[in-house]
Amino acid sequence: MSESFGSSSARKHRAILEAAETLFLRDGYLGTSMDELAERSGVSKQTVYKHFGSKEVLFVELVTTMTAGASDNLDELDSIPDDEADLAPYFMQYAMDEMRIVMTPRLLRLRRLVIGEVSRFPELARALFENGPQRSIQSMAIVISKLVQRGLLSAPSPAVAATTLNWLVLAALVNKAMLLGDEALPTTTAMRAHAAEATRVFLTAYANDTGLDDLR
Amino acid sequence: MSESFGSSSARKHRAILEAAETLFLRDGYLGTSMDELAERSGVSKQTVYKHFGSKEVLFVELVTTMTAGASDNLDELDSIPDDEADLAPYFMQYAMDEMRIVMTPRLLRLRRLVIGEVSRFPELARALFENGPQRSIQSMAIVISKLVQRGLLSAPSPAVAATTLNWLVLAALVNKAMLLGDEALPTTTAMRAHAAEATRVFLTAYANDTGLDDLR
Repeated sequence: MSESFGSSSARKHRAILEAAETLFLRDGYLGTSMDELAERSGVSKQTVYKHFGSKEVLFVELVTTMTAGASDNLDELDSIPDDEADLAPYFMQYAMDEMRIVMTPRLLRLRRLVIGEVSRFPELARALFENGPQRSIQSMAIVISKLVQRGLLSAPSPAVAATTLNWLVLAALVNKAMLLGDEALPTTTAMRAHAAEATRVFLTAYANDTGLDDLR
Repeated sequence: MSESFGSSSARKHRAILEAAETLFLRDGYLGTSMDELAERSGVSKQTVYKHFGSKEVLFVELVTTMTAGASDNLDELDSIPDDEADLAPYFMQYAMDEMRIVMTPRLLRLRRLVIGEVSRFPELARALFENGPQRSIQSMAIVISKLVQRGLLSAPSPAVAATTLNWLVLAALVNKAMLLGDEALPTTTAMRAHAAEATRVFLTAYANDTGLDDLR
């Protein structure tokens, strides 16, 4: 936000962004009008234009803010295992954290919206790709490299192994939620069973010695 | 199509559906008008309404037709292996077939469009879910059950194993194509490398004896 806005102006800026989140996520890009945005924010249409210039600028700012916020929450670089016995608990925890961050109605609605607007806003979809899945895959590839150096995993390409892990954890759940909506969000019990199977498949395929007897 | 339409009427019906495919996939549901649909089909707007009643009816018919067509092309029930040496070639072929069917610009655009319209047309997204991924997962679960009976795989839940396989094959590619558009479609070489890794991970996790030395 520009420094030249005073605190009343800052409040308006936030109010417009909040209204944009509600309306864009509910009604889509074309289905949302600047009139509604102004009305819901409690400001004039002129004020909306003063802050954001156009509906397109407002949409881009909303998507960028929401995407950046989500991808800062995964701490997979903490406490990388140095013993094979720690592999399964580490990847279980990683899978649970990743599901909890991604499988929220707000982020899934954003993903639906951006996918529906790929042809109009290709650069937004690219930003979601790079700040979302791709960013956590890259961090995980670093972890996997370290685990290969420590002799715990075998992965000729850490990036491929990280991609496999990412989608073992997320794919079935995200696909279901994309198409079936918020009612398809998994329960914690379902997430735990899913994380256990993803961890088992991943470690069976990539660990030198899984110590996995208790996960089978 | 109703029997009461003559051949000229049948031609018009097809022309409208073709125009609908082009316009809906390019401009989305809200971005497409009945005027454009009529113009592109070379018929009057009245004729479009006579054939389809409303834009919504036309959209539902288009999505239903496209989805049903795609899911009839996978023959995973042919030639189920009865020897461990046949497992890897069988799953490699399955993976290649599945990627070739799903990773087409037309189906990926349809998927984007339906995802973008989940809140307006939840029943369409459910149809895509059930006729698309879910249908091929169910067929594969039958194959996996037979392979368990034959002593070649271990899978306490064939449905879970089939879901794992489906997304090992498709998830990374579909995610990329959803967000990055048609330019992100994989080459045949990339598909083959991906199919080999998906097969290796799947068989390492579920086969009793993979005979996989040549895939590693």
